[in-house]
Amino acid sequence: MTETIEAVARGVREGRLDPVELAEHALRRAEEAAALGCVVHLDASYALRSARDVARSRQGALAGVPLLVKEIIEVAGMPHRCGSRVFAGRIADTDAEVVQRARAAGAVVIGLSHTHEFAYGCTGTSNVEGPCRNPRDPSRMTGGSSSGSAAAVAAGIVPLALGTDTAGSVRIPAALCGVVGVKPARETLPRGGVFPLSTSLDHVGVLAGSVADARYAVEALSGGRRTGRIGPPRLGVLTNPEPHDNAADVAVVYEQTVERLIAAGATTVGVRLPEWARFTTASLDLQGPEAAAAHAETFPLLADDYQPDVRERLLAAAEVPGWRYVLASQLAAALTAETDQVLSTVDAVVLPTVPITAPLLGAVHAEVASGRHSVRDLLLRNNRMANVTGHPALSLPMPTPGRPAGLQLIAADDHRLFAVAEWVDRIINNREGHQ
Amino acid sequence: MTETIEAVARGVREGRLDPVELAEHALRRAEEAAALGCVVHLDASYALRSARDVARSRQGALAGVPLLVKEIIEVAGMPHRCGSRVFAGRIADTDAEVVQRARAAGAVVIGLSHTHEFAYGCTGTSNVEGPCRNPRDPSRMTGGSSSGSAAAVAAGIVPLALGTDTAGSVRIPAALCGVVGVKPARETLPRGGVFPLSTSLDHVGVLAGSVADARYAVEALSGGRRTGRIGPPRLGVLTNPEPHDNAADVAVVYEQTVERLIAAGATTVGVRLPEWARFTTASLDLQGPEAAAAHAETFPLLADDYQPDVRERLLAAAEVPGWRYVLASQLAAALTAETDQVLSTVDAVVLPTVPITAPLLGAVHAEVASGRHSVRDLLLRNNRMANVTGHPALSLPMPTPGRPAGLQLIAADDHRLFAVAEWVDRIINNREGHQ
Repeated sequence: MTETIEAVARGVREGRLDPVELAEHALRRAEEAAALGCVVHLDASYALRSARDVARSRQGALAGVPLLVKEIIEVAGMPHRCGSRVFAGRIADTDAEVVQRARAAGAVVIGLSHTHEFAYGCTGTSNVEGPCRNPRDPSRMTGGSSSGSAAAVAAGIVPLALGTDTAGSVRIPAALCGVVGVKPARETLPRGGVFPLSTSLDHVGVLAGSVADARYAVEALSGGRRTGRIGPPRLGVLTNPEPHDNAADVAVVYEQTVERLIAAGATTVGVRLPEWARFTTASLDLQGPEAAAAHAETFPLLADDYQPDVRERLLAAAEVPGWRYVLASQLAAALTAETDQVLSTVDAVVLPTVPITAPLLGAVHAEVASGRHSVRDLLLRNNRMANVTGHPALSLPMPTPGRPAGLQLIAADDHRLFAVAEWVDRIINNREGHQ
Repeated sequence: MTETIEAVARGVREGRLDPVELAEHALRRAEEAAALGCVVHLDASYALRSARDVARSRQGALAGVPLLVKEIIEVAGMPHRCGSRVFAGRIADTDAEVVQRARAAGAVVIGLSHTHEFAYGCTGTSNVEGPCRNPRDPSRMTGGSSSGSAAAVAAGIVPLALGTDTAGSVRIPAALCGVVGVKPARETLPRGGVFPLSTSLDHVGVLAGSVADARYAVEALSGGRRTGRIGPPRLGVLTNPEPHDNAADVAVVYEQTVERLIAAGATTVGVRLPEWARFTTASLDLQGPEAAAAHAETFPLLADDYQPDVRERLLAAAEVPGWRYVLASQLAAALTAETDQVLSTVDAVVLPTVPITAPLLGAVHAEVASGRHSVRDLLLRNNRMANVTGHPALSLPMPTPGRPAGLQLIAADDHRLFAVAEWVDRIINNREGHQ
């Protein structure tokens, strides 16, 4: 699919494109790509019924756009299994708020996409159905937890998928699969009907093939207004050490990308965000108690039904004392104020989304400049900040002949984020056709 | 002092009363009543300087009204010891927000009143200076934690004192000392500059000699508008079991009081609030982690300097797991909605503030209809609800020849609470002169 989502929906509204054919194409692609494991529930009859409805109404900003929904987000009548044996047999009664909006805008849900169990993991490897596989190399992981949504967009099954992001769960698989993932500001997309991981940190986001598509979709789902292009932005390059501690392949492509942006007219300034360690403390001490609370009814009864890594995480989460949670809330407020201050001086900050490219399935450690670290720590490292503060953040692919690598942008508000990201995407990915 | 606060302030503004004489009277009364231990810091030079300023300006709704401030509330230049050896030597740099407002309204701060150490106890017995004694019988406790503020009003030292209430800390000592204590709605009086016990539950409140005085003071401190009398109210009598499980003396006076209100025209209806056990869970699981967080810097270093009961409480508080705190926040939201619903059907609910009268200092257990319970549990029992929900609540004395007993009113908003409470106070305490 090379047309933009906006053009597809226009084609449907104007009768030039048939939503039933679009749905059939997506269903066929999903069958062909079944070995990736990115679609955990494919519902042809539901999809075709929706498509026929749209064919009649020919309305909506997302008219006829095939959509996959991360399986922790409720779609009425479809399983609400959250990737887990623990929720086996659960069927959603109602659509999550964001799904209601998508359907009201004419999107055609074709099924549910793979999640790391209960969204509680960043590798996309733990699910009652098995791991999700990276379309660029099925021996490698997708990252997660919105594993299936990123992989399905990368595999050309759908042009748009819904995900969630608590510590990077949209941006990490976007980076590893070579697509765009955006976590808009905390209140942009509603969380009703999404199974919580961490109520303070959870964000709903989207995965798409380009920044223009992601922006168009977020605006369609939130009622936000589309605005014009901007000129070359003022970019904050972080002086914190972590964004410069990358695997060799990521380091090269990141450096080339920043140079290309400067060559195209961007201004760069050194800025410093608060120390990563403070963001990590806030993130973990909020997430643990909130995750343990979300599972307080099921975990004591069904601990053995959880995937081993998620079980271990929940056991540790239950041990975080309440006073640390309270201090973490206060810390998050302080970090938000400090980050606001930094972001007010630039159009966006830029950093690698993830310091490594997709590891092999089963890999536990990976190498960056400073040495060997756990894959999990590396995937999460540059992503927790924007969930603690609620600022919008986005990952877009950097041009590389090798495995995909993502460039992350973080900005003060959605409008500025998308404006800068569209400019960057145009420059580095030659998306002239996309305006 | 038999005049209302309103009349005193008017007298000062009109030049008929001298604020210096009022301050001298309060200082003298404080010296005479020193054995009660209710004033922990008396500052004659500060008081007389303030009084002279007011004598010149002759302005403000509280012009010349002598005031005591609970020692966990900062008054610039005075000790900020919070009743504790841990804060020995601390001097406040600035006035707490509520003190700024009081001083701007012309109130004359004469000093600081006794608190249970860090407001973390309901008996008023633990303070580096020793216990506070009940003016009606110095062998008995005042209740707490706003022990000194209630006792000072009861002893006629000041007509008005500031307190705080996290689980009953204004209402309990008001009931045991025979004065009026009000904890207005959560956002009515600002908490800046008040040492926190539990940020979710803390309220600033006032202690005064009558409902009219308490109302006038709260309105002066919050900028609220005074409104007229109401007719006989519709009162909710609780069908929950706890408000009917009282010591014999409290049971008799409570029954007589309700009968007198009905005879005067009040309508009563049976209503049921959520179960006390749920309020207790929410209160304890919010308070513990928040208290432990407030002491996270000092407690590990100075545990031995805390009073034994507070030390024990902080040790237990540090053990509450974060997930229970998270569930308690959710529970508090549910309880607030359920209580809103109940309060929307009546003008106020009525119940005994405390099921016992003031125990002897040192008493650990007391008797009610259902048997022997800990004094602490009995004092707190009927008071936690309004802190969990943030609804305004007030205790006023019921007429009795014996030891004081308080009638608690809880209402949907401050306006309704005060209107009902003034009507009740007029009927049961013959306050005709107070309008």
